[in-house]
Amino acid sequence: MAPKTMSLKRAFSATLQQIRTYSAPGDRSIPAAKQKYVPTSGTYPKGFLAGTSHAGVKASNTKYDDVTMVVSEEPCAGAGVFTRNVFKAAPVTVSRQTLSSRKSDGLRGVIVNSGCANAVTGKKGTEDAAVMARETDRCFGEVQAGGNEDQTVPRTLVMSTGVIGQQLPIEKITGAIPKAHQALGTSHDHWLKAAQAICTTDTFPKLISRTFTLPSHPDTEYRIAGMTKGAGMIHPNMATLLGIICTDAKIAPSSIYDMLRRSTPNTFNSISIDGDTSTNDTVAFFANGAAAPNDQPAMEFPSDDGDSPHASSADITAMQETLNSFMGDLAKLVVRDGEGATKFVTIRVRSDIGFLTAKRVATSIARSALVKTALYGKDANWGRILCAIGYAPGIIPSTEPVDSLRSRNLHLGMDDSKFQVVPERTSVSFVPADGSEELKLLVRGEPERVDEARAKEILEMEDLEILVRLDDGPMSASQRREVKDRRIEQERRGISRPLASVGRKQSEAVVWTCDFSHEYVTINGDYRT
Amino acid sequence: MAPKTMSLKRAFSATLQQIRTYSAPGDRSIPAAKQKYVPTSGTYPKGFLAGTSHAGVKASNTKYDDVTMVVSEEPCAGAGVFTRNVFKAAPVTVSRQTLSSRKSDGLRGVIVNSGCANAVTGKKGTEDAAVMARETDRCFGEVQAGGNEDQTVPRTLVMSTGVIGQQLPIEKITGAIPKAHQALGTSHDHWLKAAQAICTTDTFPKLISRTFTLPSHPDTEYRIAGMTKGAGMIHPNMATLLGIICTDAKIAPSSIYDMLRRSTPNTFNSISIDGDTSTNDTVAFFANGAAAPNDQPAMEFPSDDGDSPHASSADITAMQETLNSFMGDLAKLVVRDGEGATKFVTIRVRSDIGFLTAKRVATSIARSALVKTALYGKDANWGRILCAIGYAPGIIPSTEPVDSLRSRNLHLGMDDSKFQVVPERTSVSFVPADGSEELKLLVRGEPERVDEARAKEILEMEDLEILVRLDDGPMSASQRREVKDRRIEQERRGISRPLASVGRKQSEAVVWTCDFSHEYVTINGDYRT
Repeated sequence: MAPKTMSLKRAFSATLQQIRTYSAPGDRSIPAAKQKYVPTSGTYPKGFLAGTSHAGVKASNTKYDDVTMVVSEEPCAGAGVFTRNVFKAAPVTVSRQTLSSRKSDGLRGVIVNSGCANAVTGKKGTEDAAVMARETDRCFGEVQAGGNEDQTVPRTLVMSTGVIGQQLPIEKITGAIPKAHQALGTSHDHWLKAAQAICTTDTFPKLISRTFTLPSHPDTEYRIAGMTKGAGMIHPNMATLLGIICTDAKIAPSSIYDMLRRSTPNTFNSISIDGDTSTNDTVAFFANGAAAPNDQPAMEFPSDDGDSPHASSADITAMQETLNSFMGDLAKLVVRDGEGATKFVTIRVRSDIGFLTAKRVATSIARSALVKTALYGKDANWGRILCAIGYAPGIIPSTEPVDSLRSRNLHLGMDDSKFQVVPERTSVSFVPADGSEELKLLVRGEPERVDEARAKEILEMEDLEILVRLDDGPMSASQRREVKDRRIEQERRGISRPLASVGRKQSEAVVWTCDFSHEYVTINGDYRT
Repeated sequence: MAPKTMSLKRAFSATLQQIRTYSAPGDRSIPAAKQKYVPTSGTYPKGFLAGTSHAGVKASNTKYDDVTMVVSEEPCAGAGVFTRNVFKAAPVTVSRQTLSSRKSDGLRGVIVNSGCANAVTGKKGTEDAAVMARETDRCFGEVQAGGNEDQTVPRTLVMSTGVIGQQLPIEKITGAIPKAHQALGTSHDHWLKAAQAICTTDTFPKLISRTFTLPSHPDTEYRIAGMTKGAGMIHPNMATLLGIICTDAKIAPSSIYDMLRRSTPNTFNSISIDGDTSTNDTVAFFANGAAAPNDQPAMEFPSDDGDSPHASSADITAMQETLNSFMGDLAKLVVRDGEGATKFVTIRVRSDIGFLTAKRVATSIARSALVKTALYGKDANWGRILCAIGYAPGIIPSTEPVDSLRSRNLHLGMDDSKFQVVPERTSVSFVPADGSEELKLLVRGEPERVDEARAKEILEMEDLEILVRLDDGPMSASQRREVKDRRIEQERRGISRPLASVGRKQSEAVVWTCDFSHEYVTINGDYRT
């Protein structure tokens, strides 16, 4: 028996090796299926530079660049959105402090290392992150040799990605920073190498660039470029999602954070769908205005009093839309590179009872291991989709003790949406990627007779949309009352934005995810050893 | 190339088949590793009977019993706790109505079918569930032939388990119900067959029985017996956790629901750890008093005014403790039979800032696919544990839009616990199952130098405990203030129980879970096809 067991084990392991077509090959070559996502040219924002160098942060990495610098020639406006994890990595703490002290102004850019997350590393970790920023600033003459450097507020943000709980080999990194500075350049190749050097288990570099115009100066061409690497259920073992976005449009420091914050929920926050909000998640946005005509003021959001529409109102609206779309495309690339993923799945939920409900339902489906394994198995098991809709956190606080439930019901007031999802108004369909007709699985709470052959056909495609309608049919009298009451309560409390979509005709939440394969388990079971 | 690909596929599939030692064999034989969990004898409560029969609910099931009746000879007190999923299955709706109409009194027991969940089946489903109850009652002469039977409140609860979205083959089931009735008996064999017949993908029947006494009549022997089947991340594809518990102690109908409800959070609600709260989850509890001396009143909880301690106070306290322990052991059997599971993992979280925080943290770790795949891979990747602590829902609402966060912060008030988990007070250890010393991974937010060989040794064991201390070190002044403020707020609002543990010296939450293996993906990717 023993030899047989051994040979089975070997066969199993060999088989798994063979089918790992979706994870990073050891030599960092890009799998054929992913080549189409890697650009061969680009248009990059004026005045921004990218450079990389080799530090060998991971001892096993003897040749690949793992230190990346993305900077503006002139200090510029910058902002960041960061993980809400309680265990924030040192670079997150240091970068937030920098942005806060500089009030989003006078920033140089970002220094990144891959191979080690510098997370849960105590005081030493914080010092190291600060050193990375300072050494980058020093390359630009911002820090005087022998000067009172500890008291200088850095101009550079810091990002790290890799294993949690290990100290950075900081000397290796400080040695590599001047080399990355020397390597700075503006070509497509520079940007692509930067996008590659921030990767960890990613199978391809994720880089996008495009041009746009703004209404006030339709003849001026602006550029935006950005890179990202994976995280969450997507690339969770490296515990990090990073994003760096640069534009040569001119955005006021007072407005750049608001702009980034507004674009985040429906882009990067619509893919971190498994709750694996890491210790390091960071998306940074820089605007240096290098392409703006000299006479053009920086774009600003109108002030709160609202009685003096700002000159740049139309521009900033257009800029926000550009950023929304750009960040959406960048975020989707992360899903395309999901660990072990064989499918790209769009979850679209329509609701007439508030955006938040729709988003919670979409997120719940996207997080369900049962839905994701069924998609991997090409199984039209729509019962699992229904089940995930029905237990969506916030729809029903299912995992908490009864006492907590009671307490929530007392205090949550209008945020308690447990009466909002009504089975009799719920419909679910598969929407094929090829534009052919949707396949209805459930209509107003009643199961359809599903054409299994057609379902199989749709599930064979790489791209798939699951469409959920929570608004299929008229509201009951009590639902209408509830929606009205919530709107009144909202006005009473003086909250205009948070639940503004309540009572609106329709809202739609979209979350992007991938399937859940054997290979995911292999990658994440084997990772550290 | 084609032949090679085929052969690899075959090898892969063959290998997976061979290593599926943890899921149900086709012939329903019990795997050797699980034999130890199956009792060979038992002591069953007086006056309760169990019987099974074959209906063939699944067309492919031509020989195994799939209809189960567990009943009391005399009508008795009964209660149920049910799924909070919005899409409640028909048997859940019908059973809740029965309990409500009967005020937990005059119940006969339960009728169960496996093979089909009767969930999302519309009106027809509700009718079918009602028919199952009525046909069972008819066996006991409760329903007169040709009588006004539709208006009789049933005495029997209904449970179904299996695929969602398919109608029951109700004629097969109504045909099998009288046969299950004829097969009723009190022997160990009857109970074991019943525990087997409610199973779906379970690899072994989960049955426990034991005896106990109560303080008022120390010479009287009472008995409690129960069976369960899996659900959640554990056995999610059948979309159901079912539990049936019977005792011959005498519990007042007015108190039986409270007793069941109080025992649920730390037992069955501490294993449904992935949020996969199904459409069918039901745990029912029956007490017929058949072993109680004639002069003994039914046990009751003291009334709310509290000035007349009830005669049975000591008894009902002891009964509650018996039920707690019994339900805990039953629930743990479900984890032992997790789909593809190779490990039984106890997550224990200690907190001095409230039980709810501890429970949320424990649940978050238990749900993390990253932690579970690392355990499967025997990888001491404690960074993932930290990460899961840091994003625990309720600790930090990470997946919701910023606007929602703002709204929650405004309204959640004292329930907003985001300041409660302080990295500097957090420690994490592995506690080996063999009683040897714990292995410290993180102490007060600082990583330990981990002995990897020792970690590997611990991770080789089937049982493992992850111990998290959120209270390792003194509170900061602001934390003490927060705890005090919350207690005052709580008193002001007149809530005594929900957050009663706030400010207590220490509370502890325990959640049981299993690891996450290749086989889980295989089972759930293949399931329906």
